[in-house]
Amino acid sequence: MNQINRVAIVGGTHGNEFTGAYLIQKFAQFPHLITRPSFETVSLLANPKAFAARRRYVEKDLNRCFLKQDLADATRNSYEELQAKSIQNTLISNGDKADFILDLHSTTANMGLTIILVNSHPLNLKLAAYLSQINPLVRVYRCSFKSVEENPFVNSLCELGFMIEVGPIAQSLLKATLFQQTEELVHTVMDYLEQFNQGEIPSTKETLILYDHLSDVDYPKKQDGTIFGMIHPELQDKDYQALNPGDPIFLTFDDQTIVYQGTSTVWPIFINEAAYYEKGIAMCLTQRQQINI
Amino acid sequence: MNQINRVAIVGGTHGNEFTGAYLIQKFAQFPHLITRPSFETVSLLANPKAFAARRRYVEKDLNRCFLKQDLADATRNSYEELQAKSIQNTLISNGDKADFILDLHSTTANMGLTIILVNSHPLNLKLAAYLSQINPLVRVYRCSFKSVEENPFVNSLCELGFMIEVGPIAQSLLKATLFQQTEELVHTVMDYLEQFNQGEIPSTKETLILYDHLSDVDYPKKQDGTIFGMIHPELQDKDYQALNPGDPIFLTFDDQTIVYQGTSTVWPIFINEAAYYEKGIAMCLTQRQQINI
Repeated sequence: MNQINRVAIVGGTHGNEFTGAYLIQKFAQFPHLITRPSFETVSLLANPKAFAARRRYVEKDLNRCFLKQDLADATRNSYEELQAKSIQNTLISNGDKADFILDLHSTTANMGLTIILVNSHPLNLKLAAYLSQINPLVRVYRCSFKSVEENPFVNSLCELGFMIEVGPIAQSLLKATLFQQTEELVHTVMDYLEQFNQGEIPSTKETLILYDHLSDVDYPKKQDGTIFGMIHPELQDKDYQALNPGDPIFLTFDDQTIVYQGTSTVWPIFINEAAYYEKGIAMCLTQRQQINI
Repeated sequence: MNQINRVAIVGGTHGNEFTGAYLIQKFAQFPHLITRPSFETVSLLANPKAFAARRRYVEKDLNRCFLKQDLADATRNSYEELQAKSIQNTLISNGDKADFILDLHSTTANMGLTIILVNSHPLNLKLAAYLSQINPLVRVYRCSFKSVEENPFVNSLCELGFMIEVGPIAQSLLKATLFQQTEELVHTVMDYLEQFNQGEIPSTKETLILYDHLSDVDYPKKQDGTIFGMIHPELQDKDYQALNPGDPIFLTFDDQTIVYQGTSTVWPIFINEAAYYEKGIAMCLTQRQQINI
């Protein structure tokens, strides 16, 4: 990769994550904000029907529709599956291939400004290190896949780029501070890519703190699948903080504490994300590590 | 009213307000929690289809379906309109009429533990005063109607009772602390009603701070109806705090501050409630007053 010619900023991949969706509307109205001399930037509202309905999705989670085999499968024709194919066409298949994709998300969990890496491309790592160095609210979470074929996210379309996941914020509303912080982060990414094209990327420390995905934890559930507990008050909002064996994780509806049964320290994130109740995910456990870049 | 024979606790009137919905499930499993010697208590999950879909409603906001004329209108047959008629039958029309209805809601706004009165019945006022006296998080908001015929809420079914509106909490999730605080409030109400039946209600101060509904304020909108601004950071989470003429209320997407243009101090509530975007309500303005009870 010698030159980035086209950058895509995607928002509203989940229709009730307003921060990204309204930023896309702002960028559409004021395109000079995301323009830089050495590359073209397109902004894309990824799921307009879900955004209009103020829902995560209409038929199917769009950000799980980008498996290569599904995009190639002509029988897949739900609204979101067709939308995924259309986005693939827009960003990848036609003449103007995007070289970098930034996908804007928000979460009800206390994730601050999280960079979600889906691979370990050196430029992604360097940019993530730069962002976390200039803004202490930035954390870097890596959700690796054995191969790109197993990655169902928008970001699977392109090796360069990542998701930005901001929170805590309720679904279907805007919070001005988080809107501004996210926009600032987008501008910083655009500036960095411009500098990359000029051959003069900012230097960073040679290490980066990464939170690597380990496993998901479901809510305590009865045999019929209904939950009987919630995130323990001592764990709520403690994303990216160490969780040790024996620490409280859930409180049942009849006030019993359930503790973490693991054998080593982990760092939970996405604690109490509303959209993950239906996915059976109460939190994601990660391993904190420092890597050399 | 000499004796309260039957109390109804309603939750999940909005299917994505989990606090009330899961409390109803808890009370159904542990009915002794809401049982008191002198009255019967029924618990009711008001909108099971919307709760299953994790949405506020399926076709229509259930808590706007209780106008007397609509309940009597045989042509109204959306899911929620039929559900409203069914609830009316369950709680009012058959032999065991409910004498007191407690309807449990939650909000993304920073409303603490709010009692929403829909009338000024002396017992409702006294109970609200008692609750606010023993717990400083409790506030009392009065949303009056010219007549009961204009009240579209579940609580229009019965003169006694009110809504409990807790927040801030995102839609479609549980927060343990708020779950516990809401349950505690329900128990206190049940205890109070038991004491009322015994002729020995606790004494309270003779005054009550009430926030009376004045008007609604919409988001700044373009001619096509799309919003171009959000709640100003200085107003976010400032529910029940004085707003003076000239204070910031909105921040436009291009960073312009819009100030409150009124001529006198008001006390905004329901600031940035997610469900009110579609209703064109960015906040409700109230008048704070002290009344004698």
